[in-house]
Amino acid sequence: MNTKLDESQISIVSGGAGFIGNQIIGRLISEGRGVAVVDNFSRGLRAHLDVFAHNSLLHIIEADLSIRRECMNAFDVAATKGRVVEVWHLAANSDIPAGVADPDVDLKDTFLTTFELLRCMKIFGIKSFHFASSSAVYGDLGSTPLHEGIVPLLPISNYGAMKLASEAQASAAAESFLERVNIFRFPNVVGIPATHGVIFDFILKLLSNQDVLHVLGDGSQQKAYMHVSDLVDAMFTVSSSKINEKIEVINIGPVDEGVSVRWIAEQVVARVSPYAKIKYGNGNKGWVGDVPRFNYSTDRLQSYGWSPKLNSSEAIIRAIDEIAIQKGF
Amino acid sequence: MNTKLDESQISIVSGGAGFIGNQIIGRLISEGRGVAVVDNFSRGLRAHLDVFAHNSLLHIIEADLSIRRECMNAFDVAATKGRVVEVWHLAANSDIPAGVADPDVDLKDTFLTTFELLRCMKIFGIKSFHFASSSAVYGDLGSTPLHEGIVPLLPISNYGAMKLASEAQASAAAESFLERVNIFRFPNVVGIPATHGVIFDFILKLLSNQDVLHVLGDGSQQKAYMHVSDLVDAMFTVSSSKINEKIEVINIGPVDEGVSVRWIAEQVVARVSPYAKIKYGNGNKGWVGDVPRFNYSTDRLQSYGWSPKLNSSEAIIRAIDEIAIQKGF
Repeated sequence: MNTKLDESQISIVSGGAGFIGNQIIGRLISEGRGVAVVDNFSRGLRAHLDVFAHNSLLHIIEADLSIRRECMNAFDVAATKGRVVEVWHLAANSDIPAGVADPDVDLKDTFLTTFELLRCMKIFGIKSFHFASSSAVYGDLGSTPLHEGIVPLLPISNYGAMKLASEAQASAAAESFLERVNIFRFPNVVGIPATHGVIFDFILKLLSNQDVLHVLGDGSQQKAYMHVSDLVDAMFTVSSSKINEKIEVINIGPVDEGVSVRWIAEQVVARVSPYAKIKYGNGNKGWVGDVPRFNYSTDRLQSYGWSPKLNSSEAIIRAIDEIAIQKGF
Repeated sequence: MNTKLDESQISIVSGGAGFIGNQIIGRLISEGRGVAVVDNFSRGLRAHLDVFAHNSLLHIIEADLSIRRECMNAFDVAATKGRVVEVWHLAANSDIPAGVADPDVDLKDTFLTTFELLRCMKIFGIKSFHFASSSAVYGDLGSTPLHEGIVPLLPISNYGAMKLASEAQASAAAESFLERVNIFRFPNVVGIPATHGVIFDFILKLLSNQDVLHVLGDGSQQKAYMHVSDLVDAMFTVSSSKINEKIEVINIGPVDEGVSVRWIAEQVVARVSPYAKIKYGNGNKGWVGDVPRFNYSTDRLQSYGWSPKLNSSEAIIRAIDEIAIQKGF
């Protein structure tokens, strides 16, 4: 971080065509850094990269990073663009229910992408790894405050399990060859370009039926949400800070109590289809692996002197408007 | 556990030809339970099963559980022997340096065996999973007491990483379909049939050169050791107890401070080759991923009213004698 940045230094961003990866690219390019985005375009859209079109700092490499030869090839190509100095690893399955139905999805898209990336980083001598982990590594601990180092890690979804597996592999890599690992445990994040998530799902449902919105669960699930602009800002604050340890594991999240699914449903309907009726299901979980509510400690993040600009309700309102526009409302 | 045991109930023991799996089989058979041992005989030896030869309770299935069709086939065969009610998962890479040199070893032998086993357990409706995890999931936390739920999990070896990945997958499986998961975090275990470990290595070295014993590191590494007879007894105490949660994560280990590598080397030499000279290397780690010393909390295990019969030095002395005999001294 203290070497002079120039175009010949390249950051690899895996999953750069996805929601958060896209925003990471934007931030890197705005800082004048060269970026090699690697994506298989399975969930992320090529169109999400159009906003950077013709920017000479951006290189697009299509590859499935869970497949060894494709991963190796991606690193070979990236190395022709400049000196690769770091990897931002955002590629992953983002569909928790899909991973519950078929564990292979999280194995391949979440864990094996991490495994193969780290393997190539060792081969190519790349020392800095920034990983998009998840609060899902904690599982469902009720109202126990989720501090980074003082609760058991018992994920309840294959998604969370493979995020934790990835953290573990990155931790071992830090001992073996990495010089800096940032493990960012993400909260629920909202914003654009949306590819999934509760707001996105509600708007899609209202696009296909403007009269009624069916909500999984009874709507009482309460979660805290962070806007992607705040998330990315927190990640760059941490990644550009000096730390004593090789590894920083850090919860990123808002400091408020969050909002209920019911409240979100009402806001989406108000913005998109004011006359729609909202119908709720049963129970306070939306699906197997869904954690209904948690108490997420962000003390460590706050020790960096950072706090989010938007609270959960402000983040949701802004994201609803952004996604509504993205979907043509 | 509260149903009547009979020969038609089968326990699958993966890695049953290995060191600890072998002892698990002995315990199950001594209790009159049917056992299907599944092993690929890559590190475990078929000869280790000779002690059970002609016992009608034992069924031997050769399969590499990390390969989907072989795992499925093993479950198919086991199901022809009786009703499979539980899986004891001992199959894993046991060679930490091998996994540091080539992460594929731990990926395949430690993690993918777990992944495929759990996948088959779901398909076959088997609800009880006993997993041999490791203190290596904690990494190197210096003198921090290692309690099951209140320290970060930052493994420093691929071995530890893939044990943690396996725990994570088992945890997600508990939410999805398992009724009981016991995650046993093993200490350093000694005894026979030895296939690896410090005593085994020292004796092998003295077999090839009876005059000098070269020790990795300066010999100051201090670790606590448990005899395999105590380990297995602890596992069965926990697995036969009723607990409130679906998942029990439990450190198994002795309560003493442990012994140094130097002391072990001296005991091995005294037993096997009294005139050999011991030569030490540098540093207090034997290899990348080796944790020099740790403070392992066994409060949770003690809450079961269980304690080991042998302390570290007694366990080492007994194991040296057992392994010396195994190797023909």
